[in-house]
Amino acid sequence: MFECAFVRVWFAWLASCVLLPATLLAGSGQADAPAAARAAAKPAWLDAYRAPAARLIEAATADDAAWQRLAELTDTFGSRLSGSKAYELAIAWAVDRMRADGLEHVRAEPVKVPHWVRGHESLEILDPVERPLPLLGLGGSVATSAEGVIAEMMVVSSFDELDARAAEARGRIVVYDVPFTTYGETVRYRGAGASRAARHGAVAALVRSVGPVGLRTLHTGAMRYDPAFPSIPVAAITAEDAGMLHRVAKRGKPVRLRLTMASHFADEADSANVIGEIRGREHPDEVMVVACHLDSWDVGTGASDDAVGCIGVWEAVRLMKQLDLRPRRTVRVVLYANEENGLRGGTTYRDAHREELAKHVAMLEMDLGAFPPVHFGFSGSDGARATVEAIASLLEPIDAHRVRPGGGGADIGPSVQAAGIPALSLTGDAEQYFMIHHTPADTIDRIQPRDVARAAAAIAVMAYVIADLPERLDRAAGTGAP
Amino acid sequence: MFECAFVRVWFAWLASCVLLPATLLAGSGQADAPAAARAAAKPAWLDAYRAPAARLIEAATADDAAWQRLAELTDTFGSRLSGSKAYELAIAWAVDRMRADGLEHVRAEPVKVPHWVRGHESLEILDPVERPLPLLGLGGSVATSAEGVIAEMMVVSSFDELDARAAEARGRIVVYDVPFTTYGETVRYRGAGASRAARHGAVAALVRSVGPVGLRTLHTGAMRYDPAFPSIPVAAITAEDAGMLHRVAKRGKPVRLRLTMASHFADEADSANVIGEIRGREHPDEVMVVACHLDSWDVGTGASDDAVGCIGVWEAVRLMKQLDLRPRRTVRVVLYANEENGLRGGTTYRDAHREELAKHVAMLEMDLGAFPPVHFGFSGSDGARATVEAIASLLEPIDAHRVRPGGGGADIGPSVQAAGIPALSLTGDAEQYFMIHHTPADTIDRIQPRDVARAAAAIAVMAYVIADLPERLDRAAGTGAP
Repeated sequence: MFECAFVRVWFAWLASCVLLPATLLAGSGQADAPAAARAAAKPAWLDAYRAPAARLIEAATADDAAWQRLAELTDTFGSRLSGSKAYELAIAWAVDRMRADGLEHVRAEPVKVPHWVRGHESLEILDPVERPLPLLGLGGSVATSAEGVIAEMMVVSSFDELDARAAEARGRIVVYDVPFTTYGETVRYRGAGASRAARHGAVAALVRSVGPVGLRTLHTGAMRYDPAFPSIPVAAITAEDAGMLHRVAKRGKPVRLRLTMASHFADEADSANVIGEIRGREHPDEVMVVACHLDSWDVGTGASDDAVGCIGVWEAVRLMKQLDLRPRRTVRVVLYANEENGLRGGTTYRDAHREELAKHVAMLEMDLGAFPPVHFGFSGSDGARATVEAIASLLEPIDAHRVRPGGGGADIGPSVQAAGIPALSLTGDAEQYFMIHHTPADTIDRIQPRDVARAAAAIAVMAYVIADLPERLDRAAGTGAP
Repeated sequence: MFECAFVRVWFAWLASCVLLPATLLAGSGQADAPAAARAAAKPAWLDAYRAPAARLIEAATADDAAWQRLAELTDTFGSRLSGSKAYELAIAWAVDRMRADGLEHVRAEPVKVPHWVRGHESLEILDPVERPLPLLGLGGSVATSAEGVIAEMMVVSSFDELDARAAEARGRIVVYDVPFTTYGETVRYRGAGASRAARHGAVAALVRSVGPVGLRTLHTGAMRYDPAFPSIPVAAITAEDAGMLHRVAKRGKPVRLRLTMASHFADEADSANVIGEIRGREHPDEVMVVACHLDSWDVGTGASDDAVGCIGVWEAVRLMKQLDLRPRRTVRVVLYANEENGLRGGTTYRDAHREELAKHVAMLEMDLGAFPPVHFGFSGSDGARATVEAIASLLEPIDAHRVRPGGGGADIGPSVQAAGIPALSLTGDAEQYFMIHHTPADTIDRIQPRDVARAAAAIAVMAYVIADLPERLDRAAGTGAP
């Protein structure tokens, strides 16, 4: 079901996932020190932005309007998997609300999206007594037969161990019991675990959930098949059960599992990127994009991944409108489609706006939650970085002034890469984020109103000033890609 | 399905649950200070027990044998609901292992237990778009029809609010969104929520899980019907979803839910209390009981509730055997049946051993986990308390020397109450325990080997010394009941 073009983009995205967290999880000291030093030398042009920045911060933090909108979105529609009715309704709601907010050029730009359907799924350990184990099929997995796969399990701690014991894998259900270190390190097992096992003749694979140990918490997420090997069904199990199966295996008695999955792809569905703007007063054709993705996995309500990002970037633009702050250039909010299992929103935007990308002055994505402490990531020229750091210094009052290397995001990635656009991200605390990432526990009650307000304020100030700068943000050739 | 006698006992047990946690959760300062002062005046007889206590502590903490046995039990059989095949196998395993340990008079004393079967269950919110919500039917609930109950929801924060808005409840599914304070305070909604709603004409009830907010974590547990009102189906929902439904209700648009449950009682099943002993060398007919319950709810693996209690008391006796420490009186380990949904093990033991209860010198139950810090609870005469506190002082090296008011346990309760027997408990940290209590997350990986070893050592020392005292533990009339 995966087109080649999609697979290539998606590989790139997976690679960015692998690389991103190392930066996210790195200590902040070294990265922040030079930033602080540079920010200390504040340029004269910054003074003109102190008043509007203060107004944006004050308006954003005056009430819990942003959190209430986040609650309305996640409470009303729940999860928003591409192709689902709930997602379709959420898109219509967002268009209506953006228009009511007075945003300009509000539209839903068509995007065709894959429609993966989970269907019924179950897992049982059969020896010495049959009992169910919780599971979550991985997005994109094929189904089993209706009777399920019944096979003896083989538990490994790594791909290396699997390869070393390859002869044992034939006809088995391979269980990966890989403790979570960083997302980048362990998500490889979710992405490639099925095909790595199928290569040695395994009939199914189970992957320890990619996240810290929770409370028997399941993490779903996308996987991909290597076309060189058979496509075998694959699901996530809890960290606790992976450990249990590993102990049982070490005791030496053979244990059989039964895995049943009815997952499949329905026809591709009509979906959309939701877009609204404040048109620039001097250069309306030059665009500062602030972005998120409105789709989510089909568990939890996608509150941190990525409804809070959508509310953050949308509120940023709404606040400018409310305060009548119209920058020189256009600020465009894009609620992308289908980040989770296809990235079609990002690739469709790139293709539909290809002619316009040269006039994208910068793109910012918020897709790693609002849990404090937050920081900006930036990828671009040194000149642009200095400008971004100066702007960020305006956010010291709300503790959102840190700028670290590595900006960007999955959805803006295709455009950023195609045209070398300076790329930013607003990023929350990774530890809290990955605890609930792709789980049923990604719900709004974990998110504080002040944290949504902080994110909206930070993005509003950053986007407004970049869009309003007397000179366009520096875009030295060859340094724009994240 | 509930016999009158059972209902009475079970009411008493529920009442003890309501009262117990207030003690458990109280600050330790005041309760510990007098204990420390009294323990400072250590009696001369205590000296004879310093060497055996040190040996028991050393043996218990020398390796992770206790944790490994806990792992074998919970990994092999999983959850152990009364009437289930897994529980039956676990009983047979325990008898075999006790015999292999060399315990004496090992037997499985027959107990008839109720056999509640969960069956398929589901919950959906229907407006504005149908989507599933996780649920766990409460133990003892009746089923819905096969099509389920479809009704508008009514969300309340308390019984008071329900009663004040009673006219709205007719035909509704009542949702109790009661934030967790203490177990005793909030378990009332689990126990009585269905009948309190049915009294006003509700057609089903949903209860916010009784526990701290976890990660969309469901807590099951027993409920009871008031025969004065119709029996309506009742299930637990997550704290997050209770809050979500409450917010949705406050927005004012009617919302319908569909609840489907196939729970029912099968025929009563043959089960057993598993018993082993070290016979006393001078007064074998006088008995010190150390107890737990081997059954669990049907989610998680009942590792803390109460497999760890079983391993703690069983190891205590095994260690005496291993070290050839045979006290003057008999020490009897009892792995009770059916604590969770019937208390038949406790009532059957009381009835089968009625003639012998007068010679029970004390009973100790471990059923609140092994999470540190641990303490003993004690209910009995002041004289006996002073003795218990002196013995506990031997456990200072492993931080298990605290003695607080309020000993006992659900399973030993019927015997303790029938014969005024001094009652002890070994109790872990309540906050960690109630986080995973009756949830899928009650698994062994949360329990540290050193904590199982500490519990076993503490119980071994306390039980050995009480059973070996030159004079039988004081049992002043009228003060024995907890």
